[in-house]
Amino acid sequence: MSSSSSLSLSQSLLTKPISHHSLSLSPTQLSLPTHRLTTTHRRITTTTHRPINPIRASAAVETLNKPTADLSLVEKSVNTIRFLAVDAVEKANSGHPGLPMGCAPMGHVLYDEVMRYNPKNPYWFNRDRFVLSAGHGCMLQYALLHLAGYDSVKEEDLKQFRQWESRTPGHPENFETPGIEVTTGPLGQGIANAVGLALAEKHLAARFNKPDNEIVDHYTYAILGDGCQMEGIANEACSLAGHWGLGKLIAFYDDNHISIDGNTEIAFTENVDSRFEGLGWHVIWVKNGNNGYDDIRAAIKEAKAVKDKPTLIKVTTTIGFGSPNKANSYSVHGSALGAKEVDATRNNLGWPYEPFHVPEDVRKHWSRHTPEGAALEAEWNAKFAEYEKKYKEEAAELKSLITGELPAGWEKALPTYTPEVPADATRNLSQQNLNALAKVLPGLLGGSADLASSNMTLLKTSGNFQKDTPAERNIRFGVREHGMGAICNGIALHSPGLIPYCATFFVFTDYMRGAIRLSALSQAGVIYVMTHDSIGLGEDGPTHQPIEHLASFRAMPNILMLRPADGNETAGAYKVAVLNRKRPSILALSRQKLPNLPGSSIEGVEKGGYIISDNSTGNKPDVILIGTGSELEIAAKAADDLRKEGKAVRVVSFVSWELFDDQSESYKESVLPSAVSARVSIEAGTTFGWEKIVGSKGKAIGIDHFGASAPAGKIYKEFGITKEAVIAAAKELI
Amino acid sequence: MSSSSSLSLSQSLLTKPISHHSLSLSPTQLSLPTHRLTTTHRRITTTTHRPINPIRASAAVETLNKPTADLSLVEKSVNTIRFLAVDAVEKANSGHPGLPMGCAPMGHVLYDEVMRYNPKNPYWFNRDRFVLSAGHGCMLQYALLHLAGYDSVKEEDLKQFRQWESRTPGHPENFETPGIEVTTGPLGQGIANAVGLALAEKHLAARFNKPDNEIVDHYTYAILGDGCQMEGIANEACSLAGHWGLGKLIAFYDDNHISIDGNTEIAFTENVDSRFEGLGWHVIWVKNGNNGYDDIRAAIKEAKAVKDKPTLIKVTTTIGFGSPNKANSYSVHGSALGAKEVDATRNNLGWPYEPFHVPEDVRKHWSRHTPEGAALEAEWNAKFAEYEKKYKEEAAELKSLITGELPAGWEKALPTYTPEVPADATRNLSQQNLNALAKVLPGLLGGSADLASSNMTLLKTSGNFQKDTPAERNIRFGVREHGMGAICNGIALHSPGLIPYCATFFVFTDYMRGAIRLSALSQAGVIYVMTHDSIGLGEDGPTHQPIEHLASFRAMPNILMLRPADGNETAGAYKVAVLNRKRPSILALSRQKLPNLPGSSIEGVEKGGYIISDNSTGNKPDVILIGTGSELEIAAKAADDLRKEGKAVRVVSFVSWELFDDQSESYKESVLPSAVSARVSIEAGTTFGWEKIVGSKGKAIGIDHFGASAPAGKIYKEFGITKEAVIAAAKELI
Repeated sequence: MSSSSSLSLSQSLLTKPISHHSLSLSPTQLSLPTHRLTTTHRRITTTTHRPINPIRASAAVETLNKPTADLSLVEKSVNTIRFLAVDAVEKANSGHPGLPMGCAPMGHVLYDEVMRYNPKNPYWFNRDRFVLSAGHGCMLQYALLHLAGYDSVKEEDLKQFRQWESRTPGHPENFETPGIEVTTGPLGQGIANAVGLALAEKHLAARFNKPDNEIVDHYTYAILGDGCQMEGIANEACSLAGHWGLGKLIAFYDDNHISIDGNTEIAFTENVDSRFEGLGWHVIWVKNGNNGYDDIRAAIKEAKAVKDKPTLIKVTTTIGFGSPNKANSYSVHGSALGAKEVDATRNNLGWPYEPFHVPEDVRKHWSRHTPEGAALEAEWNAKFAEYEKKYKEEAAELKSLITGELPAGWEKALPTYTPEVPADATRNLSQQNLNALAKVLPGLLGGSADLASSNMTLLKTSGNFQKDTPAERNIRFGVREHGMGAICNGIALHSPGLIPYCATFFVFTDYMRGAIRLSALSQAGVIYVMTHDSIGLGEDGPTHQPIEHLASFRAMPNILMLRPADGNETAGAYKVAVLNRKRPSILALSRQKLPNLPGSSIEGVEKGGYIISDNSTGNKPDVILIGTGSELEIAAKAADDLRKEGKAVRVVSFVSWELFDDQSESYKESVLPSAVSARVSIEAGTTFGWEKIVGSKGKAIGIDHFGASAPAGKIYKEFGITKEAVIAAAKELI
Repeated sequence: MSSSSSLSLSQSLLTKPISHHSLSLSPTQLSLPTHRLTTTHRRITTTTHRPINPIRASAAVETLNKPTADLSLVEKSVNTIRFLAVDAVEKANSGHPGLPMGCAPMGHVLYDEVMRYNPKNPYWFNRDRFVLSAGHGCMLQYALLHLAGYDSVKEEDLKQFRQWESRTPGHPENFETPGIEVTTGPLGQGIANAVGLALAEKHLAARFNKPDNEIVDHYTYAILGDGCQMEGIANEACSLAGHWGLGKLIAFYDDNHISIDGNTEIAFTENVDSRFEGLGWHVIWVKNGNNGYDDIRAAIKEAKAVKDKPTLIKVTTTIGFGSPNKANSYSVHGSALGAKEVDATRNNLGWPYEPFHVPEDVRKHWSRHTPEGAALEAEWNAKFAEYEKKYKEEAAELKSLITGELPAGWEKALPTYTPEVPADATRNLSQQNLNALAKVLPGLLGGSADLASSNMTLLKTSGNFQKDTPAERNIRFGVREHGMGAICNGIALHSPGLIPYCATFFVFTDYMRGAIRLSALSQAGVIYVMTHDSIGLGEDGPTHQPIEHLASFRAMPNILMLRPADGNETAGAYKVAVLNRKRPSILALSRQKLPNLPGSSIEGVEKGGYIISDNSTGNKPDVILIGTGSELEIAAKAADDLRKEGKAVRVVSFVSWELFDDQSESYKESVLPSAVSARVSIEAGTTFGWEKIVGSKGKAIGIDHFGASAPAGKIYKEFGITKEAVIAAAKELI
């Protein structure tokens, strides 16, 4: 493998057991004095007691065919994780110690025994993905990343937990902490992201793996709690995971019977096992998650053996395990234990160390992950070099997906239009763009929440991504908007070159706003294809007609809200959306036909606001008419009439406020000269926010109430979204 | 019963069989020539063929212990429903014929045989509630309301389906069409509303029923489709329904295997039965929903017999039943059949009538519901009169819940505060208000999405609403924000005097925006108690810190967005929220302590924006400082400093933009004189929209990016949300 090819891949990992490898420590090296552990064992549901013996990981964990450590060292490692969490939360006097204390055993098994990663390159492509869906328990993951040798979480980072500009914020944030895959905290999002990560793996494996070289091959692990389980988004995403048969998705359900309001008995008595079996998952119950290490290992082994279904491993744990007075209660969920209880917990678990101390034997035990991770990546790099030799084209394509480099000249595929091209709905024009782009962008994939034929999102050259056809690129999300958005976040954050799009009616962004906000926050460049963007959808009525939605997204940070007016602007919106890989785009598209307007352009869209026609001179029109999307046509027609009466009229398309904001002051002044206060905007949505554009002396025409059920033309007329209204307003201002 | 008491109740219904009643038609009257039906029977899964015989409803339907009609008349009635739907959609050339054609049999059984209602008084308190969760199939319900004799849906209304200002809009809207209980269309909302309706019934029955007089006693029925089933909100609400054991909730799942994108095989292969059993529901499968009338009846009987669980009746139907070329395909879901296929369907089902025709025998058969409904209500009125005689206090309270009349002087319970009262978080002040109001408002009930101890929503005088303690008023929603909102909509729309509140962190309104929008649209006066309303929550970080949320709700029609600054303003916000029974309120409340400010008042809040301090004369301050919520304190402190420097400074609390908008122009001018352009606003959220208030020359201080994880004070300082920033901006403008 040439250095140039391996370099740009940000490297690699071994897919088979590493028993031939000399990097792992020998059992002898790991044999250490046992610590007697006097734990509280409050909720242990199995009665089997195991002697404290060297355990044999080989029986349970297929990736490491050797004993890793004796039980005492494992327990010591687990207690290290617990106390790193306890100490960090205590120092910050803020945070959630309960989950890390309860989930430390499964966390240890995952990061120390099961998962394949390279701590020195958190972005290595073929790494196993881990998602802490119960994001409030982030100290679990920070402790694990610290032990595993990630440079992003050093001791000083743990001491800065939840402080200004630290790399250990209050919930896991992928954009702050290398090693964190996705941003969690809002419950249910993480497990849905994990479904997206697992989908991406299955899709890429199907596209690129060869019988002699399975170049894409990793698992996706997640830990979710009772809170995640109650959220509807989790059910949506897990229903799809079952439907798609995502066999390499393994989710741990931290079944601790405690949520913030107390025992889950008060609000959560459903049978989760039955529900997940109904959703098509394989379900395993580990009854003793507090120290049933072999059970956890066996469950993972079993999960891996079930290749056609995702697996839920329900692990019954004690929240705040080890805290003598707070374990198994809501009081340990979301507050520091307090100095006294920290001491009591140290006593109880026999932990003589200072805060943040990692015992030398534990540190030494975990230190092997640095050389092992490097070896895994090197081995994968070698494998990729072989792949590249044999499958040149596929390797190039895969590489572009891994690096996120867009193919040269891709934007030439964008269609352009002249005013002579017949009027069409921007949702149809969107489909032309999607299909054109699918040919040049190997990472473009996506679909609709059961509205493909209304949102016009089908890629004609592709079949459906399904359990048995995972190489296809049309994803059928069903009526699951929130899950859809979060799954797309997972896809986007799997590999820089994957460009997921998803679609529903614009009004139903209300169902998925939690996921869209996380696209924006976590820099996931999802493309939201939102059709039926106004009263222009007509008869379906006010439940289906967006009013406040444009404003609500213009107010959201790091979103690109685009409302193209015709063919060229739709192409421009796609150009912007594809280029912005760290900023999600929402395209608001019409159901109704719109003419191709003279003066519209891709370049104009890239500036957010631009002049589409003007008969003024010296940057001093009598009036500026401003429209977006389907109302730009109305502004243009009003301008025609006003010009016939001798007025100097400028028409501005204001397709994206955010992009316009990003322009230079001089450009902005050239479009909206400050001396011209006669400004009229028209948009079939709320006027909220438009004062910024039209100024105190201008007039914003819009709709500040709910819509109505009737043919679209009738509603436009009754609501005064008309050429006549624009002309009247303009005349008042001139 | 005195006329005054019965009048205000908007009347009543009989809870027992009406066999002693002479109003029902005799079997002989109903015996009519049978029509031979040659249907396509594409998906009928049972093989039992029944002769076309008089059926005995008495065997299946407990409320009508007599044969209602022979099968031919039933089928004729069912076909009438089908063709009213087909014809209305055809005339509008818009709508969804598929569901009404498939669900007409269950619709017929419900409205003609099972449900207790009075068509001439759709608001009769003790009526059975029906929710068409699959709202796109609204022509089913319009046809049923029409046949049942509701004045809101006359023949001319059917002909105006989906037209401007008609009473038959494109989806069911409770505010347009008496007889429609809730507004549906956005999928999954309706079944969650139905959970709320059933909760309200169970709660009121527990509070008011006596061993000798079960004055509250009705069922809640719903029809949901595959789309509803896929939505996470439905799973959330149904999990709670199972947890609460809502035995009088009976939901029909229209299992037609078709959604918009085609066969449900492409995205929905989960086992719904298992899932619902896991959720604690009783599940029945009617395999032949197309003409298995007895099976439908038997299922309802069985559902009623299961008193401790809600029941899901899965009814396998054929979408578009009767259409020879379009049945059982997505093409019949959401478009008119087209003239040719309408003819073919008429032929196929042997339907010789003109569009919109109701055959005389069908009309006559249904006509009994008018006198029967009146009798049911009269009987209930009599029952209420007896109740009133024996249980005077309870009757008065129940009456106030039915009429929505607030107890005289209730607002005196609102706490007031002086500046000497120690600083407190508005979330805590909110709890003082809730507890004070619970004593005087018998209809106040609600709770939090597993954050009761953070949102501070527990009513101290009440226990938890649970399966076995349904008279209590603290509702534990679990981590199910979207379901919570929709359940509260159902509670609010059950009876005018019920005042539901619900709570979570403000940022998680993103999870429940679909339900909040429907509160606003459907005039459900839910009180949303939203705490942790800014970066002031500190360490939890950007996933938990609202930025755009205030703006996003200010942009939403018919919402009252309130952000109180201290004790008096929190009381004022509650006063507004309680008084606005047709306009939902959102209270944005702080986690952090805020001082009680001189000049704050309940009356001020009622005006939306008001002066809390001013040292200017002649309505001409040098500068106006405007703040909301936790930042009003900062504005007040800045004013103190500026005044020390001799400036004339006005401080305005802008607690609710909507209420301020509703004031007279002269009041607005008295607060924000147009001559004063030196205006500075400060709010720990997006500045989007503030140009309207501060004007082009003013300055809005806010946060136009995501938050951060750190102690709150640090974030305020780093983000420039400070007194110093206000002073600097003011000096620049003066």
